[in-house]
Amino acid sequence: MRYAIKVEYDGTNYGGWQRQRNALTVQEVLEAALKGMAGNPVAVTGASRTDAGVHARGQVAHFDAELSVPPHKLFLAMNTRLPPDIRVCASCEAPEGFHARFDAEGKRYLYAISNSTYASAIMRNYCAFVPGDLDVEKMREAARLFVGTHDFRCAMAAGSSATTTVRTVYAIGVQREGDKIDLDVRGNGFLYNMVRIFAGTLIRAGQGKLTIGEIQSAMDCGDRTLLGFTAPAKGLTLMEVYYKNRLF
Amino acid sequence: MRYAIKVEYDGTNYGGWQRQRNALTVQEVLEAALKGMAGNPVAVTGASRTDAGVHARGQVAHFDAELSVPPHKLFLAMNTRLPPDIRVCASCEAPEGFHARFDAEGKRYLYAISNSTYASAIMRNYCAFVPGDLDVEKMREAARLFVGTHDFRCAMAAGSSATTTVRTVYAIGVQREGDKIDLDVRGNGFLYNMVRIFAGTLIRAGQGKLTIGEIQSAMDCGDRTLLGFTAPAKGLTLMEVYYKNRLF
Repeated sequence: MRYAIKVEYDGTNYGGWQRQRNALTVQEVLEAALKGMAGNPVAVTGASRTDAGVHARGQVAHFDAELSVPPHKLFLAMNTRLPPDIRVCASCEAPEGFHARFDAEGKRYLYAISNSTYASAIMRNYCAFVPGDLDVEKMREAARLFVGTHDFRCAMAAGSSATTTVRTVYAIGVQREGDKIDLDVRGNGFLYNMVRIFAGTLIRAGQGKLTIGEIQSAMDCGDRTLLGFTAPAKGLTLMEVYYKNRLF
Repeated sequence: MRYAIKVEYDGTNYGGWQRQRNALTVQEVLEAALKGMAGNPVAVTGASRTDAGVHARGQVAHFDAELSVPPHKLFLAMNTRLPPDIRVCASCEAPEGFHARFDAEGKRYLYAISNSTYASAIMRNYCAFVPGDLDVEKMREAARLFVGTHDFRCAMAAGSSATTTVRTVYAIGVQREGDKIDLDVRGNGFLYNMVRIFAGTLIRAGQGKLTIGEIQSAMDCGDRTLLGFTAPAKGLTLMEVYYKNRLF
């Protein structure tokens, strides 16, 4: 049977989602838990290959296994075999042929900025610390340039293997609440590091270090070096993956 | 000169605020940082002796020292000598004779509950996990019994050395946002474990395991065993300490 699960994790102590040689990853920990339940190796495929330090509240993954637990209760059984910084939030039998990555029609990310005179102790692993003035209106203006269907090769990290760099960004919300600024980014798909480059660029715009004209030029000529820095991984959380039909 | 500081900390890795034999404490770490700056031992007095695992966003403390840094910039210098899970948010020269604990006129605490089918990975150190139905209206009804000036000996942990058990609770807010329920408690002072006993009692009320009548009886006869459990330390955060005159 093919199962789908929704996963929350604190990425602080992991080398990202995808299995790799030199670091413990979320995929690996989930596969180990499922191997213990199924009695044989189970391969887990995630919708998004989040980087080291990136968090998730709504990662979605699928896998094939023969398990005795009812699909909608599987998440409870899995949680007894997982460390407390990885939790399965929900589980179900996946529709015929369902693929967590290829079937995803969009994603929502949150990028959290702490705009204060000191780096929050409690939020230290869940936001980027940006002291000094940040003009939220300028950040919103910059964000509007990214909304819509564009070639985003200027907002992609080197070494990406994407076949096309055209993506559609549905919306970017910029919300301040006290010292905290949240960037809420929704789109049909994202290039490697795209949301973190958006965040670094909006920060520079808010600081008055990048103008709307400069960001527009970067978009026009596709030059990564004209945009802002890649904001730290720890500020990023994958909130939701969208599918044609609701899974959970 | 006497200084006052406002401190944020993640209590997860500390044995609480107050210096003790067998665990590293927040007071001790602050005193070590100040000793490094002053060249001699500095004793730090906090407004609230938070327990192991309890967090703070607005702890206030005072100390006497001769330092070359301007008082309002002291927090920046201190932060370079502190671990990232303890931050000084603000600093100033304290008013003549100021005492962080004795001069406090009230405090505000937040108790966070995660009311979901799974224990949040990201919030695991910052809330109590309470699965199953919780009736927020019943919690609010129970909270109203605690508001006002009462003898709270039923809501005090054994072994406390309080001379009087009468306290005034100004307000208890009970707010649900999705899976999260926040208890916002303000009062002129709190007995040992009082807010955590409030939290455990409101949880039992929300579960329908304690009635308004039972809680009223506990208040009337002062019997600790008639109230709910002492909710876990990690859900509690000291938000603010009130003084006659604004410090920062």
